[in-house]
Amino acid sequence: MYIVPEAVIAGLLSRDECFRAVEAVFASMARGAARNFPVIREALGYADALYGFKSGFDREGLALGLKSGGFWPGNAAKGLTNHQSTIFLFDAESGQIRAVIGGNRITALRTAAASAVSIRHLARPDAEVMAVVGAGHQSAFQLRAALEQRRFRRVVAWNRDPSRLAGLAAVADEFGLPFAAVDLDQLGAEADVIITILSSFAPVLRVAQVRPGTHIACMGTDTRGKQEVETALPGRASLFTDEVLQAITIGEFQHAIAAGLVTAEAVTPLGAVIIGEHPGRVSEEEITLFDGTGVALQDLAVGAAVLEAAIAKGLALTV
Amino acid sequence: MYIVPEAVIAGLLSRDECFRAVEAVFASMARGAARNFPVIREALGYADALYGFKSGFDREGLALGLKSGGFWPGNAAKGLTNHQSTIFLFDAESGQIRAVIGGNRITALRTAAASAVSIRHLARPDAEVMAVVGAGHQSAFQLRAALEQRRFRRVVAWNRDPSRLAGLAAVADEFGLPFAAVDLDQLGAEADVIITILSSFAPVLRVAQVRPGTHIACMGTDTRGKQEVETALPGRASLFTDEVLQAITIGEFQHAIAAGLVTAEAVTPLGAVIIGEHPGRVSEEEITLFDGTGVALQDLAVGAAVLEAAIAKGLALTV
Repeated sequence: MYIVPEAVIAGLLSRDECFRAVEAVFASMARGAARNFPVIREALGYADALYGFKSGFDREGLALGLKSGGFWPGNAAKGLTNHQSTIFLFDAESGQIRAVIGGNRITALRTAAASAVSIRHLARPDAEVMAVVGAGHQSAFQLRAALEQRRFRRVVAWNRDPSRLAGLAAVADEFGLPFAAVDLDQLGAEADVIITILSSFAPVLRVAQVRPGTHIACMGTDTRGKQEVETALPGRASLFTDEVLQAITIGEFQHAIAAGLVTAEAVTPLGAVIIGEHPGRVSEEEITLFDGTGVALQDLAVGAAVLEAAIAKGLALTV
Repeated sequence: MYIVPEAVIAGLLSRDECFRAVEAVFASMARGAARNFPVIREALGYADALYGFKSGFDREGLALGLKSGGFWPGNAAKGLTNHQSTIFLFDAESGQIRAVIGGNRITALRTAAASAVSIRHLARPDAEVMAVVGAGHQSAFQLRAALEQRRFRRVVAWNRDPSRLAGLAAVADEFGLPFAAVDLDQLGAEADVIITILSSFAPVLRVAQVRPGTHIACMGTDTRGKQEVETALPGRASLFTDEVLQAITIGEFQHAIAAGLVTAEAVTPLGAVIIGEHPGRVSEEEITLFDGTGVALQDLAVGAAVLEAAIAKGLALTV
């Protein structure tokens, strides 16, 4: 059995390797060769913790396993991350445990890779202004992966507390791009691509703020009740997601579905675009909206790539 | 993080420690302090494997985690066990991974402990003849744990292929008890306690073969379609189980429920007997029937006890 501790994971995979792992598993899902199993998610009634498991199997990549993930709100006070994830991989040939891999950084990487894959396949080729809504822990990962997908010339961002935007400004600076903290009206008026990465239970971005031709990746909604964009917005856009069932139940599209504004049939798995079954964006004026709900297969694909890199670099412990 | 490999687990826990861990968690379940989460069980469509996860949390014992369990029918040809299980424990205070523990032997131990707990609390105090139906890998574990619960004087057993009963005869011999391979009519006519531990998709033990006052523990039915005793038998018995929902859907009681012979309300969690909320057996003539379906909390309770023993004896690896 291999162990890849959280501490050695940063730097093990390039963003491009991470991108390719997620793109490949989305394609595998669209071909029917990879499947996520039902999600377990439970309130423990102890330490205010939420806990659960996402699992799946990719017959093409032979990634079999699960990610345990939890939210312990009291951890920060103890100097620990509130979100705690661990990835477990099994040998698809025998069922034996193959690896235990720290899941915190991989969760950020695979989420950022998902929105980047959506940008690669759905944003206008001439997109120039990249926008981020939200400035939490994951936002910098999101922006870094996104900026590699087009020849962006400028970054704008919004956060309820603008003083927290320094991290995103620093990422723009890494890429040599100008950065501006803006209000949501200006953000929507300038942006060609918008990533929303909030933990919000009320819509933040309005229909009127989004101009034609924009690509939006909603990456923060993973629970019933959460919402990032106005309920009417999915009704005005072409809809894509990682997994349709999650998007319409716990993802961003849950509200438009509940309001009868869109149907599940109107939502296309991004993998179908990747494998050429669906054309993706078909006009300059179209708004494309990707709902990144987060599936086990992303974690397993990136976890497997991290494991191979750790073995190659002698950083995986063996027991 | 601790690792307790499969190879060091045999001998780490006494059967009594195992018994007490399972009895305690059944009690915790009956008090509403411990809960099994929904079970994931999937056919992989690869290597003919079945795979899944059972998880749960015991607020009293603070056992949080899961057991991954799978069945790889091609393993035996490679010199590996077909059933592959691994137990993962998490720190209930922080959500961090605490231990990875081999789950194969623990599965046998906790299953044997469950039927033993049922015998302790439900069999007639004067039970003298112990019977086993089935002679697979788990049957010896079952018999050993059972024989410690009453002053048994004789062991009888049945298996479709009687030549495989040598293992059970050897266990009887360990306890200094006479052993006989018998047919099912004789088995039922002699037995005070019967354990069925089959992997069968048709009933084997008939109503007419069971005499009044018998305690039966059905331990082999864990899947839709499996069955060990005649459908009518639960209708003639007082019914107990580890978890009612499992018993009526994937356990032995699924058939009597489907046939309308019993209702879910007629099934008592064994924990309710342990904590004194239900009297258990109330007459000498009563047939008591325990359906041991196997729940995550058993694995976690025994896994936690194994971990403590391994740490105390310096056999847990630390990473």
